[in-house]
Amino acid sequence: MHLITFSDSKGRRIGVLDRAAGKLTDLSVAAPDLPQEMQAFIRLGTSGLAAAKAAAASGKATLNLDQVKLEAPIPRPAKNIMCVGKNYHEHAKEFHNSGFDASAGANAVPELPIIFTKAPTSVIAQGEAIDSSLDHTNSVDYEGELTVVIGTGGRGIKKADAFKHVYGYTIINDVTARTMQHAHKQWFLGKSLDTFCPMGPTIVTADEVKDVTKLHLVTKVNGETRQDALVSDLIFDIPTLIETLSATMTLEPGDLIATGTCAGVGIGFKPPKFMKKGDVVAVTIEPIGTLENPVA
Amino acid sequence: MHLITFSDSKGRRIGVLDRAAGKLTDLSVAAPDLPQEMQAFIRLGTSGLAAAKAAAASGKATLNLDQVKLEAPIPRPAKNIMCVGKNYHEHAKEFHNSGFDASAGANAVPELPIIFTKAPTSVIAQGEAIDSSLDHTNSVDYEGELTVVIGTGGRGIKKADAFKHVYGYTIINDVTARTMQHAHKQWFLGKSLDTFCPMGPTIVTADEVKDVTKLHLVTKVNGETRQDALVSDLIFDIPTLIETLSATMTLEPGDLIATGTCAGVGIGFKPPKFMKKGDVVAVTIEPIGTLENPVA
Repeated sequence: MHLITFSDSKGRRIGVLDRAAGKLTDLSVAAPDLPQEMQAFIRLGTSGLAAAKAAAASGKATLNLDQVKLEAPIPRPAKNIMCVGKNYHEHAKEFHNSGFDASAGANAVPELPIIFTKAPTSVIAQGEAIDSSLDHTNSVDYEGELTVVIGTGGRGIKKADAFKHVYGYTIINDVTARTMQHAHKQWFLGKSLDTFCPMGPTIVTADEVKDVTKLHLVTKVNGETRQDALVSDLIFDIPTLIETLSATMTLEPGDLIATGTCAGVGIGFKPPKFMKKGDVVAVTIEPIGTLENPVA
Repeated sequence: MHLITFSDSKGRRIGVLDRAAGKLTDLSVAAPDLPQEMQAFIRLGTSGLAAAKAAAASGKATLNLDQVKLEAPIPRPAKNIMCVGKNYHEHAKEFHNSGFDASAGANAVPELPIIFTKAPTSVIAQGEAIDSSLDHTNSVDYEGELTVVIGTGGRGIKKADAFKHVYGYTIINDVTARTMQHAHKQWFLGKSLDTFCPMGPTIVTADEVKDVTKLHLVTKVNGETRQDALVSDLIFDIPTLIETLSATMTLEPGDLIATGTCAGVGIGFKPPKFMKKGDVVAVTIEPIGTLENPVA
């Protein structure tokens, strides 16, 4: 299933998207007992999924996708989005060589996962504009990332059990003000500017992804391919990330783990290709879809 | 006013503490129209404060402090706690010289605020135990910190207006697994272990703090004074922090900004004095009170 958050004149709620038909099932009508907010829905687990599936199969309460506004699947995460730095080999090298990494030590490839966060206030939806004017250092860069949505939470989750805790997948563009990221040493501020976390367009449920390592990530800026990689190239794979994060910290339903970006970010070029007003950045990972945002 | 969150057999709610009398006003009874959760109460701003003040003055619905369990003032922040690294001169030097700082560059004193976050799941109350067994690297350290509670949110807040956005102050002990902090480069994981964010015991409202720079922070471990500093020693003062954070990111009511710790943390000693099971750590900042937690 493709789960979405959408809004129209009746407000914001959740639905099931039929991508081929360009239609969605409005769960607030087809299954009115379900929560109308994605994180509360995720907390229901398999019972929520079964109810949503039945509602979508009923054919009731469908809307055309072009009648509604697509929102970020989780418009307001209940905590910061957790993100992994330098988690693809080729990107770790390009970032290391760019001069924008403020971490000490000679290794381009990290020995342990590097985890930082983005503020929930930075989230925007498919189609909404990234406000480049907020970055007075003029160094706005894109980072397309496969993002894990946690279903069942817990602490001490082992690698072998990790996928049981994955509810589904979405896309995050981990937009970054590079000069701020570097100048403030810790990355939170340079990653948390308002509008710097496009998320979406859908959450594809885990049952539709047989082998996540086969997923293919492509980022284009103004139609030009910049990033093109397979998830199998991750340095720390998804089970390792879930084991590492949950070893000391309780994961919760709806938690978002952006797994890191691959080679081809703007600072990988010489001179760097920063984004500017009028650009359009699109991150595609099938079967999630394409997350496209203009730069304002 | 001293605002608290407390619980008993009737559940968790908020109150006004009379420290001298050891009594509190149960706002769920004395002012039943007010929200019973601190962040919702803070969003009411001055009208909420006026109603709480009147309720406390009425003398109705008082409980003895020893009849209830004190909770963290904001038990579940709506986003990660924002924290400032290396923000006292003497501490910046001790941290720099300790070998536990993974940031590149030769300067002990940062040129810009270093901001990282702690997960909301790490929060515990006054009296609750810090679980040192979660840190397999056996490097649990304390960091007493004055913490700003944001009232009115906003973006682009200027230094001159910053204190208008301060709702009050609390204390956070930014407990840290030092080896994790260093090994993972970005500090989030080593700062976000479950139970590693004691908070409290109260929020003292801003009107009771005429000059925040005069506040005095003392941290004791097993009765031995380890940290002793004035807030006037901050490298980046509170107006600068609010201006910096809000320049690019919208601040919201209930946001927590832990302003940094002063000299005297465990890694400032040779050999380091890490905390171990059975220790008791107490951070005092008057007029907020003392935040005391055992180590388990």
